[in-house]
This record gives sequence, structure tokens and C-alpha cells, in this order.
Amino acid sequence: MSTADGLLAAIDGVGADRRRGGFSRHGFDRAELELREWFVGEAERRGLAVRTDRNGNVWAWWGAPGPDAVVTGSHLDSVPGGGAFDGPLGVTTALAAVDLLRANWFVPARPLAIVVFAEEEGGRFGVPCLGSRLLTGAIDPDAARRLTDADGVSLAEAVAEAGLQPARLGRDDEALGLVGRFVELHVEQGRGLVDLGAPVGLASSILAHGRWRFRFTGEGNHAGATLIGDRRDPMLPASALVLAARRAASGVDGARATVGRLVPNPGGANVIASTVDLWLDARAGDDAGTRAVVGEISAAAVSAAADEGCTVAVTEESYGDTVHFDAALRDELSGVLGDVPVLATGAGHDAGILAARVPTAMLFVRNPTGVSHAPAEHAEAADCTAGVVALATVLERLAG
Amino acid sequence: MSTADGLLAAIDGVGADRRRGGFSRHGFDRAELELREWFVGEAERRGLAVRTDRNGNVWAWWGAPGPDAVVTGSHLDSVPGGGAFDGPLGVTTALAAVDLLRANWFVPARPLAIVVFAEEEGGRFGVPCLGSRLLTGAIDPDAARRLTDADGVSLAEAVAEAGLQPARLGRDDEALGLVGRFVELHVEQGRGLVDLGAPVGLASSILAHGRWRFRFTGEGNHAGATLIGDRRDPMLPASALVLAARRAASGVDGARATVGRLVPNPGGANVIASTVDLWLDARAGDDAGTRAVVGEISAAAVSAAADEGCTVAVTEESYGDTVHFDAALRDELSGVLGDVPVLATGAGHDAGILAARVPTAMLFVRNPTGVSHAPAEHAEAADCTAGVVALATVLERLAG
Repeated sequence: MSTADGLLAAIDGVGADRRRGGFSRHGFDRAELELREWFVGEAERRGLAVRTDRNGNVWAWWGAPGPDAVVTGSHLDSVPGGGAFDGPLGVTTALAAVDLLRANWFVPARPLAIVVFAEEEGGRFGVPCLGSRLLTGAIDPDAARRLTDADGVSLAEAVAEAGLQPARLGRDDEALGLVGRFVELHVEQGRGLVDLGAPVGLASSILAHGRWRFRFTGEGNHAGATLIGDRRDPMLPASALVLAARRAASGVDGARATVGRLVPNPGGANVIASTVDLWLDARAGDDAGTRAVVGEISAAAVSAAADEGCTVAVTEESYGDTVHFDAALRDELSGVLGDVPVLATGAGHDAGILAARVPTAMLFVRNPTGVSHAPAEHAEAADCTAGVVALATVLERLAG
Repeated sequence: MSTADGLLAAIDGVGADRRRGGFSRHGFDRAELELREWFVGEAERRGLAVRTDRNGNVWAWWGAPGPDAVVTGSHLDSVPGGGAFDGPLGVTTALAAVDLLRANWFVPARPLAIVVFAEEEGGRFGVPCLGSRLLTGAIDPDAARRLTDADGVSLAEAVAEAGLQPARLGRDDEALGLVGRFVELHVEQGRGLVDLGAPVGLASSILAHGRWRFRFTGEGNHAGATLIGDRRDPMLPASALVLAARRAASGVDGARATVGRLVPNPGGANVIASTVDLWLDARAGDDAGTRAVVGEISAAAVSAAADEGCTVAVTEESYGDTVHFDAALRDELSGVLGDVPVLATGAGHDAGILAARVPTAMLFVRNPTGVSHAPAEHAEAADCTAGVVALATVLERLAG
């Protein structure tokens, strides 16, 4: 019988990022495709029937696919230089939970599936939860097809390369219609369970969350030959935005605003940039708080751009309001799991996308470092096993 | 007989950068090697004897190589997304000047050579004028061999790949000892000649100039799950540095300070960066002014890093004091060119490196946009021809 940490060890090394540390596994890139193949192999070894849907999400069925199914799973892609657990822990615990249920002679009374969602982090095409957004119709498929990665490859090209039909991307009621309830297990991305001394918890809600792309345009020129007074340097308003983001988020209770990706173009050390692209990640407890933070940051960006003779264009690349997970389902799971802690999270998940369409719950596994989206992210083997046991308990309850 | 703009047209397209616009041609990369081959072909078509020195600089000799030679030339590499003229204009005008001199039945009384210096912009390995610094001993060859590009390839590996011996990099008195006087022609990188209504000018001096690399280290973490109060985000002090650079340069007459390259690591939109590398390009009229600007910026960086719980490490990647070109040589050229304007420049050049060892002069050709290190950089065909005539006049005087 497999363990979650044993399964994780089997994929250690796939997509290892020597430059950044950690792993870089992005939607439909070589590392992520290798992980999909690995998952298909593990599913088939267990006699699960594998289907890839129109949007590149992979489903492994225990029993014939059918309506009112109980579905669990997560994703295998990572942020650039991410940790080993964010995503893969939800897939490996699902495989191990199936093994555990079978070892206990459990036979599901309704269909049960493990799903692997495509490009959850948005690390390649910029939109988080891309596979689940396409599945549920939360993103326009034309807009999605036109998304490009850093090399200019479009999503349409990438999925075609992976053997999918770009024209068929988009809302898939046939696949989604089978899902009765969805449960995602995920490594916790903070210190909530550490502080509570609990290995496993349940999710209450996800912060409202969006990504905005700011393009500042100035005038590219020579770093030595151009007088200070003659400059229109987009790095100035871009830097002002980074500082304004901190100020704005500090002013709204529980809000977060982050610039983790910033790209000056052309990017030469002796060149005044002609443009700077930066991505603002902003979240708060509700829609009004998030909009207030982004509004304040945008106003600061416009003002700083004008001061430098630059222009700024803002694009909302993704947005989702606060997610409150199904209370009845959570109470039911809390009953069988024995009053585990219930926590809110600031991190986005495919479960947050599915929650708009089907009753959805999330399980968290303790992360002793509290760090996430970084190589220091961790879960102890014993806690992974506690996660497998909790997930198996939940699946037994829901599919029994 | 060739023209400078005709020769430039022949290499248009080599190293075209579709993403950034303009050209990306960097030391020993495919585009730069293709341009070297093109230069060797052009030199051999003219019966010039081509030699590549130990540091990868290419010399094309009219007459047997020997001491007290008159040497002209420039470089073929570019900044990332650079213009078509910065570098190649000095090489193409040199070839066209040789044609013009021969058409006028000129026979040099002393050896004459055209040189193409390697990696003048530092666009790949970070140190500007790398080929001329190695030639003259202005950089320690061990330090140079350890320089790496963005993919982690070292200079030692890159030159080995290009057929050179890494162990032989460094001061080359045999090659340098042949150079009696050096004259570099370059497109102007400002509007000096435009404002004066002159197609050609002579250089007086180059600003003191250095590059400093700042590495800010914080703690990589999740952009959504990490409370604002728990963050150690190196993007904050990095942004503070960009704003401090503008303030510091504004406070010293004629100084410039630029951050054109800034790289958050890992660079995910939903990830608080663990480190940020940025490169400060600072220049001023003299050593004291440059040091004052960099000192003020560094102090601001240290303070902002401490405020965020980050650390900062500063490395001086290159530095050169103010260059005053040889006054006697300039006066001699001014005599034969008929009182052309004499201008200072903020841009660095191989001529500035050679000036420490041999009498050196520079010719500038008018740039109607005043823009440089960007695709908008330009020189009209008539002004290129004026540059060829001026350079031929100078070579005739010095080698006659």
C-alpha cells in the first residue's frame, strides 16, 4: 500500500529548478506533462479508468463514471521555484486514500474520481486555476486561448502540442455534471494548524483574490547619455507602485498586496527601460476591501506615471470574490473527522472555483514552516499519513 | 565601393529580437558569432589579414601587423533590444573608409587595422568593454572567467565554445603593443550634434562610470497566505533603491543613476520574492561625484532593507574613472577635419579603456532621435557617409 510521502518521493526531481531552487512545473510544459504521465500510470496500476477532459484536466475513475460522483484531487503544477507539496500532496493523498479504502475492503456505492487540474498556479499563462476555470466556464475560452507564456506561446498552441483541441476548450457541463461533491486536500499555506497543534483541518473560506497587470510605458534610452531631466523611465512609477501596494494593503484589515513578478523591457543594465510589466496580486476578506486596495494602488500608479511622463495601462487578468465553502458539507465532514479546526485561507484553489457550482470542501495538512510557494514548504510524513486517513474517512462517508 | 549604410543593411536581421524589438547580439552568442563571421568575410574580401586575439577581439590588418599601427573599429554586440548603429556603425564605417582610401590610391605608410571588440555592452556577462578590458589588463582574468550569463554559462565556457582557450584570457601586450593610436567612430548617444547642426564631432571625455549589483534577500512565501506583518519582501527595499537612485543623481550636477535590470526570484505573480537582484548603473563627471551618488543610494538600500527585515549585499561589477581623451591627438584631428564640434559623452566605449594605454580619439556621427540603446537609435545615410569621409581623412592623416 502506498503512502503520500512515498508517492511524492517518486516524483522528486521532476521539474527541479536549479536556478531558483525548488520546482518549476507549469501547465503543459515538459515537467508537468511528465507528472501527468506518472499520474496516469499510478491510476492505471490501480485499475482506475483515466480520461482527459476537453480542458486538459485528468480524471481517474474508481467505478464507471456517472453522476453524483465524489471527486477529490488537486494539481501537479507549481509556481516558479515552488515547493514539493502545493498541489502534489492533494493528488498523492488521493491515490494513497484509494489504497487505504481498498485495504479496508471498502466498495464505493457511487462513482469516485481523482482529478488533476491543469495550470492551477497560473505560473505559465498568468491566470490561476485555469483548468478549473475553463471547466466551470469561469473564463471566456477565447480569452484563454489567447493567453501567452513568457516565450510568446499561446495556450491554444500549448494545448494543441499536448494533443488537445484548442477549439474545444471551455465550459464542459458533461464533465462537471458528474461531480456531486468535490473535496480537495492541500498543504496548509500558513501556520494556522501549527499554532493549533493539529495535523489536519477544514477550510471555511478563501479571500477575494485577483491579479492585475500594469504596463508602464516610458522611453527607452541610454543609461549614461541621457540627462536625468530628459528621462521618462517606467522603473520609477513601477517602483512607486510596489511601495504603494504595501501601504494600501496595510490600511485594510487582513488585506494582502504583492508584486512578485516585475519585468523591465529590454532589461539591460545600461539601458533605461522602455516599458515595465508588473503583476499585482491583491486579496482581502471581501470584494469591497479588495477593490479598495487595488483602487488605491492604481491611483498611486497613475499619479507616479504622470510625474515621470509615462503612461500606464491596467488589465484585470483574473478576479474571484470571497469563497465560502458549503457549510452543510463542512459540518458533515467535521462530524466524521472529530471536530478538526476550521480555518480561512488567503490562498486560491481549484476548490474555490468548483465551489461556485458544486458543494465543495477542503482539507488542510499542517505545514511546520508555514512557508508556501517556496522550497521551504513542508509536511511531515506522519502528517501526510494523517491527511490520507482523513481523506479516506471523508471519501468513505461521501461515497459509501 | 561599399557604404556604411549598405554594409549595415547586409547585417540587418541578425539577432533581431522579436520580443523586445531591436537587436539582441551578445558576446559569443549565435548572433554575435554570425556577425564576426560576416566581418571576417568582409575583411578577407578586401585582402585584409584577420587574426583573433587571445581575448576574442578580431583584428583585420591592412599591411603586415607591426608596431605603431593606426587602429580603428568598435564592436558588433548590442544591449538587449538595442539599436542597429551602436557598435556596427564603427565597424562598417571602418570597412567603407578602407574602400574610400583605396579608391583614392592611398597606401598606408604604417600598419592599419580594423578591430572588433568582444562584448562591449556587457549584455551577456555584465561587465561592459569586456574584450578591451581583458586586452589592456583592466580586469582580472580569473574574475572574468568566472562571470556567468543569465543561464549560468561562464565566460570560460562561452569562449571555449567559440574556439578560444579560457586559460589564455587576459592582458595581451603582444596585441596591444602594436597599437600606436586608436580611433573609434560611434553613433552619438544624445542630441549634441543635432543641436549643433553638425553631422560629425570629436569626443572630449567620458563620465566616470560603474555598475553595482545589489542582492536583496528576504523570505519567499505565499502572496495570499502571508500576513502583511509577517513579510520580509525584498521587492520593497529594491523599489526604494530605484527611487533613491533618482534622488541621489538629481543632487549631483550631471550625474546619472539607472536601474534598467531588476530580477525578482523566483518571479511568480503569486509568490513573495525570496531575493531580488538589481543592477545600478551610475555615472558622474568625476570619481568623487560618482562615489557620492552610489554612497547615498547604498545607504538608502541598507536602511530600506533593514526596515523590511531583509539583507542586502553589494558588488562592484565594474568601475572606471573619468576618461579624458588625448588632447594632442584631438587637436590634430580637429585640424584635418576643420573644427568639428567637440563633445563630452556619458556613454562608455572601448576607446575609453584603450585611452589608458595609447593615444585615443573618438568620432561621433549625428543621431537625429538622440535615443540610444533602443530601436529608435538612428543615423541618416548621408551622415554615415560623412562619418566614412571623416574617418578616412583621419586614417589618411595618421597612417600616411
